[in-house]
Amino acid sequence: MLNSIAILGGTHGNETSGIQLVRHWQNGNLPERFRALQPEMRLVNSAAIEANVRYVDDDLNRQFTAHRLEQQCSEAEAQLARQLNQTLGPKGNSATDFVIDIHNTTSEMGATLIILQQDEFNIQLARFVKHHMPEANILLEDDKAYSEHPYLCTVGKQGVMVEVGGQPQGVFREDIFQLTQTLTETILDFCIAYNAQTLPELAPCDVFILGENICFPVDETGARIAMIHHSLQDNDFQPLLPGAPVFKCFDGTEITWDQDTVIYPHFINEAAYATTHVAFATASLTKL
Amino acid sequence: MLNSIAILGGTHGNETSGIQLVRHWQNGNLPERFRALQPEMRLVNSAAIEANVRYVDDDLNRQFTAHRLEQQCSEAEAQLARQLNQTLGPKGNSATDFVIDIHNTTSEMGATLIILQQDEFNIQLARFVKHHMPEANILLEDDKAYSEHPYLCTVGKQGVMVEVGGQPQGVFREDIFQLTQTLTETILDFCIAYNAQTLPELAPCDVFILGENICFPVDETGARIAMIHHSLQDNDFQPLLPGAPVFKCFDGTEITWDQDTVIYPHFINEAAYATTHVAFATASLTKL
Repeated sequence: MLNSIAILGGTHGNETSGIQLVRHWQNGNLPERFRALQPEMRLVNSAAIEANVRYVDDDLNRQFTAHRLEQQCSEAEAQLARQLNQTLGPKGNSATDFVIDIHNTTSEMGATLIILQQDEFNIQLARFVKHHMPEANILLEDDKAYSEHPYLCTVGKQGVMVEVGGQPQGVFREDIFQLTQTLTETILDFCIAYNAQTLPELAPCDVFILGENICFPVDETGARIAMIHHSLQDNDFQPLLPGAPVFKCFDGTEITWDQDTVIYPHFINEAAYATTHVAFATASLTKL
Repeated sequence: MLNSIAILGGTHGNETSGIQLVRHWQNGNLPERFRALQPEMRLVNSAAIEANVRYVDDDLNRQFTAHRLEQQCSEAEAQLARQLNQTLGPKGNSATDFVIDIHNTTSEMGATLIILQQDEFNIQLARFVKHHMPEANILLEDDKAYSEHPYLCTVGKQGVMVEVGGQPQGVFREDIFQLTQTLTETILDFCIAYNAQTLPELAPCDVFILGENICFPVDETGARIAMIHHSLQDNDFQPLLPGAPVFKCFDGTEITWDQDTVIYPHFINEAAYATTHVAFATASLTKL
């Protein structure tokens, strides 16, 4: 039974869809059918929301490892993480059964549900979402154990992220808001069916499994020498074939995908990853 | 004669197209035909570029009024503005004949040339650009005298802005870079023809004239109660007809354009204007 559900917006202060959805629902607009779930709705990083920035000192969504939570770091987000771990967690022995953390991306990832483990709960959730919202993407990040992820949602016994784009940081788009609302409501519909034990048997569905980060090529000074090729830009979750162009260099040459497997790029040209020169992440496609 | 031309990138530190174009040209890649112009190429706000933010303390592109330049304000950008006024200006008695300042917008404005006065120089420039790059938009902001604008480019005897989008802040897109490069090169081709007195007689061209800023509707607490309607989003410089939807309210209702004239919205949902609740700017369309 999912007795305690938390819906979080504003973990990053300039990702507006979740902030508005939480505000809207806090203002008495939570659809009637979800009220029995009594979800806790919370705007997480109010200082970052106020300043319309991703974070004040450090990325809040990278603070939730056991190591970081044990340190007594003074950054605003490190302190906030310890508070959140007390009130929503504690991680590993949580008072919250299920945490839904809502994000935006500047990449054209549409409505993406990010799950962090392949247990029965997450497999059922993935199939349910894909069945009711076929346009949604399911992304599985299980390159490490659930407890080892640094993400806020892992303070819950179960935790997922809603990741919707493309939307520039600080901008609020109607189409992106509608996708965010639809995906979040679909997850809550799953919670109702899960608690009522009325989940249908559903066939395996398409799931993208996170591979690795691919970085921009840089010169000896660390400056980028290339940009995302226009044929890759905005094509998140579309197959990238061996030999297809990936980067256009400023000298006019092209760099192609030199591996011999098809991959599914996502987080293509995400603004928040630009400072670390991450160009995109790879994924493989499977049935789960 | 345009004897001294300055090409500026990074006036806003997270507007990447101009930063890259200036870097590229500084690295010996300025096309051969422009070398006789000996343009000065400058990355303006290096602290903001380094931090990948619009500005450190205050918007640099709002500092160049006589009033602000006379004040001894301590903000990083106020100090930088006084330095730039000394080295590129001084405003009103400038050592620089023509300043081209390159910007990005998150709005779908394509390649837009912003001119600030309707004198012979700017009219010829507008016609030349529109003739050689028909997909470019010309936007005239002459709601105040040239000298009264707060923009950096007004430190030059003549000054214009290149404004290209849509591109999220901090992101670098190939398509937007290509538009930026093409528009800037077209302006430099104009400079060559202007100096050689080989400008052709060109017919008047379409020019958008800035009207007013339209703000999001807010409640008594100052919170927005509506978003840009999906039928307006991304339709910069397309005609908005009387009665057409402009805002979708969070309560499900719509707000329509209630004036009886057609206007041409632009800077629709621009991220940098979100904190002041500016939803878009209006323009009228004329021949110049």
